[in-house]
Amino acid sequence: MRRRLRLGMIGGGQGAFIGAVHRIASRLDDHYELVAGVFSSNFETSKSSAEELRIDPGRHYKDYEEMAKQEAEREDKIDVVAIVTPNHLHHDPAVCFLNKGFNVICDKPLTLNLEEANSLVKVVEKSGSLFALTHNYTGYPMVRQAREMIINNELGPIRLVQAEYAQDWLATNLEANNKSEGYKQASWRTDPKRSGAGGCIGDIGTHAFNLISFITQLELQELSADLTSFVPGRELDDNAQVMLRFKSGAKGSIWSSQVATGNENGLTIRVYGEKGGIFWNQENPNYLKYSPLGKPPSILSRSGPEIYSVSKDVTRIPAGHPEGYLEGFANIYSDVANAIWEKIEKGKTISKSIYPNVYDGLNGIKFIEKTVESSTSNSLWVKF
Amino acid sequence: MRRRLRLGMIGGGQGAFIGAVHRIASRLDDHYELVAGVFSSNFETSKSSAEELRIDPGRHYKDYEEMAKQEAEREDKIDVVAIVTPNHLHHDPAVCFLNKGFNVICDKPLTLNLEEANSLVKVVEKSGSLFALTHNYTGYPMVRQAREMIINNELGPIRLVQAEYAQDWLATNLEANNKSEGYKQASWRTDPKRSGAGGCIGDIGTHAFNLISFITQLELQELSADLTSFVPGRELDDNAQVMLRFKSGAKGSIWSSQVATGNENGLTIRVYGEKGGIFWNQENPNYLKYSPLGKPPSILSRSGPEIYSVSKDVTRIPAGHPEGYLEGFANIYSDVANAIWEKIEKGKTISKSIYPNVYDGLNGIKFIEKTVESSTSNSLWVKF
Amino acid sequence: MRRRLRLGMIGGGQGAFIGAVHRIASRLDDHYELVAGVFSSNFETSKSSAEELRIDPGRHYKDYEEMAKQEAEREDKIDVVAIVTPNHLHHDPAVCFLNKGFNVICDKPLTLNLEEANSLVKVVEKSGSLFALTHNYTGYPMVRQAREMIINNELGPIRLVQAEYAQDWLATNLEANNKSEGYKQASWRTDPKRSGAGGCIGDIGTHAFNLISFITQLELQELSADLTSFVPGRELDDNAQVMLRFKSGAKGSIWSSQVATGNENGLTIRVYGEKGGIFWNQENPNYLKYSPLGKPPSILSRSGPEIYSVSKDVTRIPAGHPEGYLEGFANIYSDVANAIWEKIEKGKTISKSIYPNVYDGLNGIKFIEKTVESSTSNSLWVKF
Amino acid sequence: MRRRLRLGMIGGGQGAFIGAVHRIASRLDDHYELVAGVFSSNFETSKSSAEELRIDPGRHYKDYEEMAKQEAEREDKIDVVAIVTPNHLHHDPAVCFLNKGFNVICDKPLTLNLEEANSLVKVVEKSGSLFALTHNYTGYPMVRQAREMIINNELGPIRLVQAEYAQDWLATNLEANNKSEGYKQASWRTDPKRSGAGGCIGDIGTHAFNLISFITQLELQELSADLTSFVPGRELDDNAQVMLRFKSGAKGSIWSSQVATGNENGLTIRVYGEKGGIFWNQENPNYLKYSPLGKPPSILSRSGPEIYSVSKDVTRIPAGHPEGYLEGFANIYSDVANAIWEKIEKGKTISKSIYPNVYDGLNGIKFIEKTVESSTSNSLWVKF
Repeated sequence: MRRRLRLGMIGGGQGAFIGAVHRIASRLDDHYELVAGVFSSNFETSKSSAEELRIDPGRHYKDYEEMAKQEAEREDKIDVVAIVTPNHLHHDPAVCFLNKGFNVICDKPLTLNLEEANSLVKVVEKSGSLFALTHNYTGYPMVRQAREMIINNELGPIRLVQAEYAQDWLATNLEANNKSEGYKQASWRTDPKRSGAGGCIGDIGTHAFNLISFITQLELQELSADLTSFVPGRELDDNAQVMLRFKSGAKGSIWSSQVATGNENGLTIRVYGEKGGIFWNQENPNYLKYSPLGKPPSILSRSGPEIYSVSKDVTRIPAGHPEGYLEGFANIYSDVANAIWEKIEKGKTISKSIYPNVYDGLNGIKFIEKTVESSTSNSLWVKF
Repeated sequence: MRRRLRLGMIGGGQGAFIGAVHRIASRLDDHYELVAGVFSSNFETSKSSAEELRIDPGRHYKDYEEMAKQEAEREDKIDVVAIVTPNHLHHDPAVCFLNKGFNVICDKPLTLNLEEANSLVKVVEKSGSLFALTHNYTGYPMVRQAREMIINNELGPIRLVQAEYAQDWLATNLEANNKSEGYKQASWRTDPKRSGAGGCIGDIGTHAFNLISFITQLELQELSADLTSFVPGRELDDNAQVMLRFKSGAKGSIWSSQVATGNENGLTIRVYGEKGGIFWNQENPNYLKYSPLGKPPSILSRSGPEIYSVSKDVTRIPAGHPEGYLEGFANIYSDVANAIWEKIEKGKTISKSIYPNVYDGLNGIKFIEKTVESSTSNSLWVKF
Repeated sequence: MRRRLRLGMIGGGQGAFIGAVHRIASRLDDHYELVAGVFSSNFETSKSSAEELRIDPGRHYKDYEEMAKQEAEREDKIDVVAIVTPNHLHHDPAVCFLNKGFNVICDKPLTLNLEEANSLVKVVEKSGSLFALTHNYTGYPMVRQAREMIINNELGPIRLVQAEYAQDWLATNLEANNKSEGYKQASWRTDPKRSGAGGCIGDIGTHAFNLISFITQLELQELSADLTSFVPGRELDDNAQVMLRFKSGAKGSIWSSQVATGNENGLTIRVYGEKGGIFWNQENPNYLKYSPLGKPPSILSRSGPEIYSVSKDVTRIPAGHPEGYLEGFANIYSDVANAIWEKIEKGKTISKSIYPNVYDGLNGIKFIEKTVESSTSNSLWVKF
Repeated sequence: MRRRLRLGMIGGGQGAFIGAVHRIASRLDDHYELVAGVFSSNFETSKSSAEELRIDPGRHYKDYEEMAKQEAEREDKIDVVAIVTPNHLHHDPAVCFLNKGFNVICDKPLTLNLEEANSLVKVVEKSGSLFALTHNYTGYPMVRQAREMIINNELGPIRLVQAEYAQDWLATNLEANNKSEGYKQASWRTDPKRSGAGGCIGDIGTHAFNLISFITQLELQELSADLTSFVPGRELDDNAQVMLRFKSGAKGSIWSSQVATGNENGLTIRVYGEKGGIFWNQENPNYLKYSPLGKPPSILSRSGPEIYSVSKDVTRIPAGHPEGYLEGFANIYSDVANAIWEKIEKGKTISKSIYPNVYDGLNGIKFIEKTVESSTSNSLWVKF
């Protein structure tokens, strides 16, 4: 019987969105207990967040360095720390904890820029610790089903990948009004200092790119991008058109937008091979449309018939009982828990992980920087 | 800061389905910790389940009487017990725990029959304890939105309610083959001794009936039913047609089936009033179609625009990030946690609960028995 | 090379809905030309309608008797007459034309009542003429696909049929206001003298019943019905719940309503057999969902893969190019044209027709009268 | 009372697809009768086609020049000729008929290349005749609704247009096998000599482009394209990614493909403005999703509530009774009939037409050539 893993957290205090998601995800399958953290750069906010979260006051720290240092000295030290701060605050805490021997779960995108990303890769490689990046959409069972179908060549050689991620919550200038409901979320995401070179391409375009890589395992050769900031006064892109050419000869595109009125969280991927095609949409994620060439399409259902175990094993309830975003996110946490136990019990790090790792994160940052590079060169094709 | 409530469990050991669901639901919003239980009538199964669940061996009990007795004597006694056994094992444990002063969360339907149900109602009334029944579909945010719209008269006086709950997992004689994947689930559900007088009408028809009551608050006047056992050798109904007449003059119907090939968990409700109609489907539960008379229908989205706070407050993530079955179930657990805290902190039991209570359970058992009565009388209209 | 058949028409003048549909349907596949008619009981309306329709003034008649008489004497007499009047004006013109040796296409339901229906059956039988009833939904290619799949036992023995036909255009008292947009349509449909004993059960419930019969070929044994007039002052039903028992042991239900707010023309049928199920919805009629037991459902597409020729042969354009209501209606007209040519060329009447015939019409009238009988007996089961 | 217009046809003989569509479209609303034609370059095929179509043998001609000449001399000459041949056979017949004073309806794309297109524009301008191009998707009522909503500024200034047209019928090398079902259709469409410089971009990409122009009335400033021929041996593109920049500052993209497995005729357009967005999909064309910013989306239904008369007036049946591809096509024919009557009765040509005209055709050819130019320049942005 494995005990609950001890989880620490950096960021995610009151008013944050993704921190709460990480906590639910960690709890869902009962692999973790949250025991330590720094929840905000504002000490008072952090402290009252810690209280709400029932953190032992002795394990609420004033900053991440202090936390890393003190946790490292404890017998019952945390097994892993989750970093859920804005992008510019990923690299330093991650490095700090890795250097103290801790495993790390980090929100995406990996870092503020490519320099930081390369730095972080080296630290991870040297550390021998586990590093997971919560590109959470890879945790959806039907995404894993799609990936497995492609690994098993059910679609034949892939020709085309069309991915998109459309939202509309930044259709107006939320970041200009600190009374707006989405102000906190909007302000750092539209600020190059905290978000990096990419706006919507970094916030959500990277999810689409990661999903393509995860499902198809195609390697990108070059891209051509046209980024736009539609909302007056906005510094970063809020819309991106990207054309893709893969090394295999496959082609594709990514459209990501945060001004596409009527779209809530429209992440969609379509993959077309010589023998068949698939369609998946995050907003109704329990189904995968599969269209074998020359036959009627069928609708594969999570936990239903003809589902690979790689997908079935990460669901909790029978087909027809919908699972959602939190369950997909929880699958990443459960993957990481299993990996940590492998390491604890067998002393080894799994070289290849189903959960997104630091190299996926590096690719994401490269993707952001290459799209910006292409776009500023009037959509020149840029080698990846 | 409220501590986690201490939860006990009866049933839900290895191989069970609904016990695991209750546990996830209790964990999701971090209001509970599972600390005690009897997980199976088979002691070895119960014990190894307890170990898996990290229960202190001293709080794994040989039976529910022992558990009620010993827990009652502890300082850190459980705050509430969840009863997740088959139907025939609801009444006695519930009575036992209520008599010892414990709050109870019980799976549906309430009891094996109406006699037990009436008995239980009395015990609950006498006890001063909280009693919640997990008609979990009432926990879905868009179900609560629908209810609130009707309370606010957005549909006008209700004329019609069409509800259905269609599955296909009992389309073959699973219960005859103890090697079949669904054997454990099928065998007790098709056995009158363990399930009661209703087969599919009790297992899922009651959910549909409960959903009608919850959303519309219409009171049933009489019903006419035609129950069928399609699968040879099956004693209980696997299909039910029920016509409904409500006291207000509204009409309706419930169709429930477990042999409707191609349906996974197809719970759907449509309500039509003089001024508008709504449609909700459990398999894509984050949306509610609302059709005001003479205007284009609109698609309300969980956490989205024009959602009442009664719905918005029981979601965790923004619109477009789907929540599912487990989150809806967790809402019931969170409602109960709030009610327990009200009781602990203010010494009072909330008289009217948003979560389903023992009277809803009594109505469910009446519904089962009345449909059976009508069906055996060749669909005579039977007063409710 | 076959010439165009000469078509006459009774009814369908200015302001009528279904007459125009019949004319388009007759024209679509170029089998007919409209050459004669009486288009309204009001002579002036009829005359100006005839002009608009480019009818030779010599073949616009003052009434149907005159038309039957004069056409019978012409060399270039009409080959067939379409009767598109309200229900109470079906029987007499039909008898009149049949007695003169003309083929007849008649709108549904067959007649005002069962007495007329029986009379008409006898006249048809004696006449040797063709008689087609435009239960047009049987003309949809995917309805024919469904029927063929069942004939070929792809679903196994049928257990259940759930059909419904829901509209909302009579949710208010349109018939009370002769300025309302739908007044003309509403007034005769809600008037027992012109519509017969059934309101919504006759107008649209019969379509649902006919569709069940056409697709499944099950024979009804008995029914139990609950008809309601929700709109104050309305004499005929505007909502009907009907439970069905078939001779084979199959069960089913029909719900038809004209007050179900938000439904435009929601005709839906679901059939469940031991081996599989199907779902079809008139509002998106080019697809048929097919769910073989234990396999993922597939979406069959009109003109697409795995479609029987009986369906493929009645489409005009490739899959993905939607056909609709008019094309389905036209298929009935084309079937009749083929039958007329069989008769002209080979002197014989096809004994079994794919298009709905007078016996289907008789069944429809029986269905109306039996539902009314059951409903007025408090939903007693009534033998069919 | 207007007589039926006399229609001639070039092309569309046995085995052709689009010719039959034109004929049905011309017949649907009874504005035309087909009286003359040359139906194939193969005389025997043409002749037997003419017989099947009941063409007076005296008006079946050996070639289009003969037809134009002889028809011009008749009293009862055709009012308009429909040219439904492959692309390389549009220009010369069109010019020939225009020069003889005939109105012309021509299938898209306009011509084989830009040179021909420019030539044809001049001939049309000089002729005073009507020239319509059957970009038929502009005939769909809900497409016209979308256009009208944008004209009325319901979406606010447009920011984004995402259009796509995906098929899969050319996923294999049909054109290499003259026994394949689609050989006739595939062979000329993949042959630069008959199809022009564009493959899928010309065949269907132009439809998407035309739809964008029609609905949004945005003017294209420049485009960047990546065309691919995935199927080995294919000379023309079977997939196209195109990024768009409009003069107004709006952006967009077109993806067209004929190798996207599982897509039948997937033409979809999404338009996003500052105040709202719309979504329309050709395969279920009776609905338009409209998402006003900050409000729940609504589903507008053809002929239903809140539909502009420009849309309502081109439907034939009530909401819920689906119309499809042929009805949309017929709307173009009816528009042209009205324009011809305007010309006949008032001696004037309407300067601005709702139906696509020669300038729309010219834009389409420009679009093809510019995408090819961009693609061969490694996706350089090319001014439109």
